[in-house]
Amino acid sequence: MNQTAGASNQCRRRSSSDIKDLGDVVGPDRNWKGIGISLLVIAAVLSVIGLSIFLLSQAEGSKALGSHLTLDDLFLKEFQVHTPEAQWISEVEIIYKSRDGNVMKADLQTNQTELLMKNITFATFKASKFAVSPDLNYVLLTYDIKKIYRYSFLASYLIYNLLTREVHELNPPEVSDSVLQFASWGVQGQQLIYIFENNIYYQSDVKSSSLRLTSSGRDGLVFNGIPDWLYEEEVLHSSVAHWWSPEGSSLAFLTINDTLVPNMLLPQFTGALYPQGVHYPYPKFGQVNPTVKLSVVSLDGSSYTKELLPPSSLKKSEYYISMVRWVTEEYVAVRWLNRAQNTSILSLCYIHTGECVRKHVMTSDKWIDQQEPGSEVNIRHLTSGSWEVTKILAYDESLNTVYYLSTEGGASHRHLYRVSTVDPFHRECLTCSLFKPHCSYYDASLSSDSQAVLLHCAGPDVPKTTAHQLNNITRHMTLDSGLELRESLRRRKIPSREIRTLLYNNQVLRLELSFPLDFDESNQHPVLLILDSTPGGQQVSDRFRLDWDSVLVSSDNVIVARLDGRGSGFQGQKNLQEVHKRLGVVDVQDQLVALEYLQKQPYIDGSRIGVLGKAYGGFLSSILLLSHGSLFRCGVAMAPVSDWRLYGSAFTERYFGYPAKNEQKYQISSLLPNITASEQVKFLILHGTADATVHFQHSAELVKQLSMYNINYTLQIFPDEGHDISSRHYMLSSLITFFRECFYDNTPVVMETREDD
Amino acid sequence: MNQTAGASNQCRRRSSSDIKDLGDVVGPDRNWKGIGISLLVIAAVLSVIGLSIFLLSQAEGSKALGSHLTLDDLFLKEFQVHTPEAQWISEVEIIYKSRDGNVMKADLQTNQTELLMKNITFATFKASKFAVSPDLNYVLLTYDIKKIYRYSFLASYLIYNLLTREVHELNPPEVSDSVLQFASWGVQGQQLIYIFENNIYYQSDVKSSSLRLTSSGRDGLVFNGIPDWLYEEEVLHSSVAHWWSPEGSSLAFLTINDTLVPNMLLPQFTGALYPQGVHYPYPKFGQVNPTVKLSVVSLDGSSYTKELLPPSSLKKSEYYISMVRWVTEEYVAVRWLNRAQNTSILSLCYIHTGECVRKHVMTSDKWIDQQEPGSEVNIRHLTSGSWEVTKILAYDESLNTVYYLSTEGGASHRHLYRVSTVDPFHRECLTCSLFKPHCSYYDASLSSDSQAVLLHCAGPDVPKTTAHQLNNITRHMTLDSGLELRESLRRRKIPSREIRTLLYNNQVLRLELSFPLDFDESNQHPVLLILDSTPGGQQVSDRFRLDWDSVLVSSDNVIVARLDGRGSGFQGQKNLQEVHKRLGVVDVQDQLVALEYLQKQPYIDGSRIGVLGKAYGGFLSSILLLSHGSLFRCGVAMAPVSDWRLYGSAFTERYFGYPAKNEQKYQISSLLPNITASEQVKFLILHGTADATVHFQHSAELVKQLSMYNINYTLQIFPDEGHDISSRHYMLSSLITFFRECFYDNTPVVMETREDD
Repeated sequence: MNQTAGASNQCRRRSSSDIKDLGDVVGPDRNWKGIGISLLVIAAVLSVIGLSIFLLSQAEGSKALGSHLTLDDLFLKEFQVHTPEAQWISEVEIIYKSRDGNVMKADLQTNQTELLMKNITFATFKASKFAVSPDLNYVLLTYDIKKIYRYSFLASYLIYNLLTREVHELNPPEVSDSVLQFASWGVQGQQLIYIFENNIYYQSDVKSSSLRLTSSGRDGLVFNGIPDWLYEEEVLHSSVAHWWSPEGSSLAFLTINDTLVPNMLLPQFTGALYPQGVHYPYPKFGQVNPTVKLSVVSLDGSSYTKELLPPSSLKKSEYYISMVRWVTEEYVAVRWLNRAQNTSILSLCYIHTGECVRKHVMTSDKWIDQQEPGSEVNIRHLTSGSWEVTKILAYDESLNTVYYLSTEGGASHRHLYRVSTVDPFHRECLTCSLFKPHCSYYDASLSSDSQAVLLHCAGPDVPKTTAHQLNNITRHMTLDSGLELRESLRRRKIPSREIRTLLYNNQVLRLELSFPLDFDESNQHPVLLILDSTPGGQQVSDRFRLDWDSVLVSSDNVIVARLDGRGSGFQGQKNLQEVHKRLGVVDVQDQLVALEYLQKQPYIDGSRIGVLGKAYGGFLSSILLLSHGSLFRCGVAMAPVSDWRLYGSAFTERYFGYPAKNEQKYQISSLLPNITASEQVKFLILHGTADATVHFQHSAELVKQLSMYNINYTLQIFPDEGHDISSRHYMLSSLITFFRECFYDNTPVVMETREDD
Repeated sequence: MNQTAGASNQCRRRSSSDIKDLGDVVGPDRNWKGIGISLLVIAAVLSVIGLSIFLLSQAEGSKALGSHLTLDDLFLKEFQVHTPEAQWISEVEIIYKSRDGNVMKADLQTNQTELLMKNITFATFKASKFAVSPDLNYVLLTYDIKKIYRYSFLASYLIYNLLTREVHELNPPEVSDSVLQFASWGVQGQQLIYIFENNIYYQSDVKSSSLRLTSSGRDGLVFNGIPDWLYEEEVLHSSVAHWWSPEGSSLAFLTINDTLVPNMLLPQFTGALYPQGVHYPYPKFGQVNPTVKLSVVSLDGSSYTKELLPPSSLKKSEYYISMVRWVTEEYVAVRWLNRAQNTSILSLCYIHTGECVRKHVMTSDKWIDQQEPGSEVNIRHLTSGSWEVTKILAYDESLNTVYYLSTEGGASHRHLYRVSTVDPFHRECLTCSLFKPHCSYYDASLSSDSQAVLLHCAGPDVPKTTAHQLNNITRHMTLDSGLELRESLRRRKIPSREIRTLLYNNQVLRLELSFPLDFDESNQHPVLLILDSTPGGQQVSDRFRLDWDSVLVSSDNVIVARLDGRGSGFQGQKNLQEVHKRLGVVDVQDQLVALEYLQKQPYIDGSRIGVLGKAYGGFLSSILLLSHGSLFRCGVAMAPVSDWRLYGSAFTERYFGYPAKNEQKYQISSLLPNITASEQVKFLILHGTADATVHFQHSAELVKQLSMYNINYTLQIFPDEGHDISSRHYMLSSLITFFRECFYDNTPVVMETREDD
């Protein structure tokens, strides 16, 4: 489960002058201001509840000519969203991958692009990822990628010389054909680190020999610079547990010790005569957690390593390190979170002494949100508001200006704003009228001098990536226009989306409906309600989406509904935290409100309503289907959590509290006795048997109970597959078939004949 | 897979005077004759190919009043077949369990029965099995039974004093609340052995202290007196690997050493936060087999143990011990079988020296049948014949008479015969006209003086158990009349069965059809073809059968078909061995012949034909369904073998040869490329994830391939269940639902609401 946070939090401030305090310690250092910003109080409270209707741009013409979207379409190259992976490499230059796969350099000053590496190079080396060295001389190519958990993967690496076109393998000393756990460039020249057997290795340049920076690494027990399962999935939301100092003179890294953490067995069924399975540390609710320490190692050749010590109040208790951020070359800001996740300490650590000074303490009677994944700075506006800052991009000291993304224009939007840090805090939206109405959901990345911005428009229209000078934002270079996908969609009947607002007990519930393009209100349509896979996420937004459920809408006249109710993110912390100790209660209530609303609509056939969810959403869909079987005809639970006691500590304890006073809340099983076997629902459970996040154990316990109560179900297992099923075409085809059979009993099942990728 | 053998075998005799040779060694010993008999040549060849039609006795009346049979009926006590577990305890006395659960003693001379132990005693001690001591003073009660493989179980035991009604636990020295691997009375007085931690313990009487007879036992590695998986499932077909001498002075036992055998992991998914799974030795095709040795231990208190040595020709090669039988108190007959299973040596071993003298050698170009499970003596008639002796019961030396059961009256029959061992070998059927036409499938057990017989009539009518004096066989005591079940069936529409004979390439194929009682030939019925779970078995016979498929016939107007084609047993070794190296070829051909026949019948709807099989039968049903999808609408594979390389050595090597010259024969996977995904079949796979016989691995590999070819399937898994699913009601209800949906698309699914036992 991916706790997409960034939501605000109801916290008691210890001191209103925290920012000042912190500033005093560090002195008038330019980089330090990032921390100041992270605590910036954005006081404005806007309550924007709106109704927005938008159609994708295929409305421009030829409705009649479009054909239905098929599942096979989604697997064609021309229906893929291209991600250019653009990034700044200087104040005016950007590196990105063009749609045809070439690695390009764009110069915003000259408006020129330059080919850095041909797409054929990827094919030559079977590589699927690239990274250009800071000095632009080399490319690190990644091949033979084997997924581990959500973000992490094992892979082999090649270093490709852009000038000579020579390649050599990246290997630890005296190892050949190595499989590495991580590898990337540093921040200067050809600095390079990689992780092998849980130890960090450093090269000052591609030709120099490797220096092993750590020696404590032990397979499955002690992790240096990379997270264990818990830190990856539930704490850092990343496969990286190390951080370069701004100028690359030091590296901060976590050492995560799982020696005492109970191991889970992931069985293996295929691929060998005697498959053996894999054990890995996975702390379930209430079990022993990994211990963690943060160290800084000098990259000057001495490998001098200093541990940064936790604040004294945490020394004797369990804690997480949930954020690490360099402030200067000598100071690191660290957020420590107690195990119960209701007290967080932001401290500033001096790397030469290892001492950390407490700067800000937050406590909550619910839980404290963790760092937003991908966000470099953490921001909390300390008043409750219905819009949120989702990402702080930069603080321009000279202009007293902060750049950020926020939902100020509506929970569905992400626009780029700048705000003055001096009274009266003048605020300006930079993108609101930029590509109207095609773009209202942006991601952005500022150049180091904050003079230019890379904009990724992620919706509602087909995504595109552009680069802009901030002083004249309408002028831009287009790195990816999205044209090919837009042309492909013109030939298909693409669903139209509409967002509605429901009010329930003074709660605002945002409901998105996807209609067939040739929607006829006088017909009765079946509905599929799709649930989010984690609390704190967002289902209803202006992000472009083209997924398997679009096929159901386009080809089968199904209306797809998504609801962001209590527990969903980006609408203020109050809404998010409504699920505290009530997971599976208030969120279920809200979905039932949506259901009730849908059943009242004349164009909806109330007898043909299905539900689908994954992980947390599978937990919800099981409850909805089994406790209210008469309202749903069918439902799917993908990798469902059936018992929270079996799920990861950091997640479960966040939502249910730690230590638990009442274990009953951790069980779905208590719901089952309410079910009468006469309710005839169709229930499909999908699960990979090697799911490392939601163990197959959950489905196993669930179906044991179902069969005890003689409740009909179908369990589609995916042998040796993980939380994300890799045989996607087959899996999606099963889903589509299931809902077609549910909604149109007598429709012959048409299997798509394409082989899986 | 249970290799139900007893079939004859084409063997080259080494010497026609083997019997005489053997007799010379042992001298004119009375017990020796058992061995002589085991080699008796029954020369008569009878070819009885007939058409028999029989109806169950509910035809007597009230057809119109009967209701349809339901699945719930089958779980009611009044629909259970009662097994009295009757056994001789003296020349005229029998112990048995009455239908109401009392343990009774019957005296055939006085015609009196006497209550030994009340049924309430079972409930008091939560016991589910009983055994009376040879001196009739004690009952060994078994409770807390936990199944291991097909026959074996872990349990705890109580010794109940019939006189004082006192009980005490059976425990090894200094162990309490022990869980034993085996426990049973010996042959004299209160002799008792039990097996704990793979070692054998002996008590000369219930009050004496235990003597540990072996010390080599090691958990999962070295087994004394009990078999490992391979010996239990594929060699001995029993949970017992020890044998009492006739008078109880010695015990022969196997020591099976699995130290070098690769271990299979049975994963565990439920019941714990961190389920760990179990490893156990399981030699797959071509892998290291366990080594075995046979020892005899003296029970005179000395525990003197002597190993019986294999014939010199086998000493350096791998072998099985497939039969052990005491001839006298000092001689043991042992059958040794080479690993390829094409050479068998019958030897006579002297327990004081451990030397074994070769008495009879058989070789085959196919394989040599193993001992019939349950049969005490192994018989082979050395000419090929279409009827078989299925069990030798006794040899009455004084009358030169052998008693045996055979299929002489037809492959469907089992009747009791006696034959003279002196020319002209007069042969007489003792049961052929006994309970005509209700009984034609008998099991029998002779009293020690061969003056009386216990008959268990197993069909075609409801089973009953009677005891008879041989001199006046029509006079009898009834131990179990089957009356209650017969009455219950009178109130239901029970299917009628009919056996037909098909000829295909001069092969006789026996086809049984079960018709609804109110069968109307002018209607078109769907057909379900049910396959056998092992080669060498028999599907078509006069045995009474009341199973889940009877519900389909009775309630859903389905015709159920069963075919005994090539590879099936009890019709001569030639028929059986037709599948040698052609498993999945000729047997499939025969099923297709049956299918063709069925499709031609006017009362059969050729578009609604389903197929079902388990284990080997699941292998066949997968082939039939996937290679000939256009002929079957749907099929079920329960715990299917998908790749013979993954199955147990002794089975696979028997049918495919060892060592294998051509591995292709071991794959079902090679069949899949022939499948076109357009064939719309419904395929249900059922498998317990902890199946120790056919590993879940088989289904996992199968569905991986199916999803690669985009072939539709449904996989119903049973978490942590073994080869026999314990949640039977749920499993059978799934089967019935599946075929109802297959045969009657629009029939609403009616789930039965009964909770599982």
